[in-house]
Amino acid sequence: METQEGLTLVVGLGLIGGSIARALTAAGWSVHGVDPDAATRAAALAALAVRHAHASLADAMAMPSLVVLATPPGVTLDLLSYPWPGGSIVTDCAGVKVAVVEAVPEQLRSRFVGGHPMAGNEGRGFGASDPELFRGRPWVLTPTSEASPSATALVERMVRALGAEPVPMSADAHDRRVALLSHLPNLLAAILVGMEPDLERPDIAGGSWRDATRVAGGNPELWADIFTLNADEIEGRIDQMVNRLEAVRRALEQRNRAALLATFTSGNAQ
Amino acid sequence: METQEGLTLVVGLGLIGGSIARALTAAGWSVHGVDPDAATRAAALAALAVRHAHASLADAMAMPSLVVLATPPGVTLDLLSYPWPGGSIVTDCAGVKVAVVEAVPEQLRSRFVGGHPMAGNEGRGFGASDPELFRGRPWVLTPTSEASPSATALVERMVRALGAEPVPMSADAHDRRVALLSHLPNLLAAILVGMEPDLERPDIAGGSWRDATRVAGGNPELWADIFTLNADEIEGRIDQMVNRLEAVRRALEQRNRAALLATFTSGNAQ
Repeated sequence: METQEGLTLVVGLGLIGGSIARALTAAGWSVHGVDPDAATRAAALAALAVRHAHASLADAMAMPSLVVLATPPGVTLDLLSYPWPGGSIVTDCAGVKVAVVEAVPEQLRSRFVGGHPMAGNEGRGFGASDPELFRGRPWVLTPTSEASPSATALVERMVRALGAEPVPMSADAHDRRVALLSHLPNLLAAILVGMEPDLERPDIAGGSWRDATRVAGGNPELWADIFTLNADEIEGRIDQMVNRLEAVRRALEQRNRAALLATFTSGNAQ
Repeated sequence: METQEGLTLVVGLGLIGGSIARALTAAGWSVHGVDPDAATRAAALAALAVRHAHASLADAMAMPSLVVLATPPGVTLDLLSYPWPGGSIVTDCAGVKVAVVEAVPEQLRSRFVGGHPMAGNEGRGFGASDPELFRGRPWVLTPTSEASPSATALVERMVRALGAEPVPMSADAHDRRVALLSHLPNLLAAILVGMEPDLERPDIAGGSWRDATRVAGGNPELWADIFTLNADEIEGRIDQMVNRLEAVRRALEQRNRAALLATFTSGNAQ
């Protein structure tokens, strides 16, 4: 079940890149990987996730048809300026898209299609990778008007080969949505977990604590990148959350049961 | 497998009371129920959760050894003043304990042991009840110094019969802990869900959104009661959350990556 696609080079073999490499290889794609960590390369080779694992881009001599940047967003921004071969289509997996799209250099624009898989788990690194991670999940693609149809088509084929569903969207709309759907919830989880040392051991924590804090185990470097790069949208959502928390605080001070009831009723419209 | 315990009367056959009745009956206890809703009574009888289901306390003639108040906290406060027979031990399941303990009238104090099962789900009503709901879960008990040892012992036997683990604690400590472990996370979930209508359909929501909002489907009346009754502790936790959100907002404005990294690193200490 070899496909007709050429070589795909996955840069970064962590949770996301490792999952992509394993799933593409399982789908018959020819996949090479790049990761600076020797143990990660060894694990990826042992899992047959990649045919070859290179320590650096300079070592990866073969000309890839497709390059998948699965690096932390800050690294992804730097790699956009790498002198990719003229025949390579490039995509990325960063959780912010405006900053990425704006950083694409002139000579790469027709061959770049930004992407963001709406999937993940609390794990980190190749050890947490899972070829089924993307199955049935949305995968946002943000091709600009400059992207060539063949570039977009190849990246869409990759997304479908991973079992995911391509969702075309502008980079702006993506960043606005994920500020609420992903970035704010992750921030709240991190703050909640950070508040817990104030407390005696949470030996009586129930399901709401577990649910609220489950996502707090992510890679701090990655989240610091994402927040820096989507700062404006996240600031707006923080303001909104603070305003609503302060309204609830006033309702509590005034023992205003009707206002509390309204908060929990509107919060019920799932 | 009939036990030697006398009659247990469960007041309120919703998610919690229904689960208690079903689990106690399965453990061989003799259980009667009270619920004003005819459909709930019929469902409880059909499920063999109770031997008899009464529409009101006045109809429940038999003298119970144990009364379990499984009503919304506001109703529980009112029921503490009911003229319970002198031989009945009384416990409750409210998610706040100081307000309950303070409302226990003089003549009931030796026979009252406050309780709070640290379990639940997003469902409501008898239809969501589950005899396994409490298995392996903590069940906070807040007997005061006035409670008789035999009252505490009977309520502990009930908790163990439900498969739960009794966790003795002062009412103060309980209310302080649940303000962070349960009340604040539930508030954040309700606010997040309330913010979603501002957004285009969240068709790209990932796991962090689902986790963060999962608990938002609870009974608004019950949550309005809990927040009113634990207002001081919750106000303190809201202030703490607002302060930390505002610190993150300042870090974002200043593009202070180190401060963001610290937030996500301390939020990682699970």
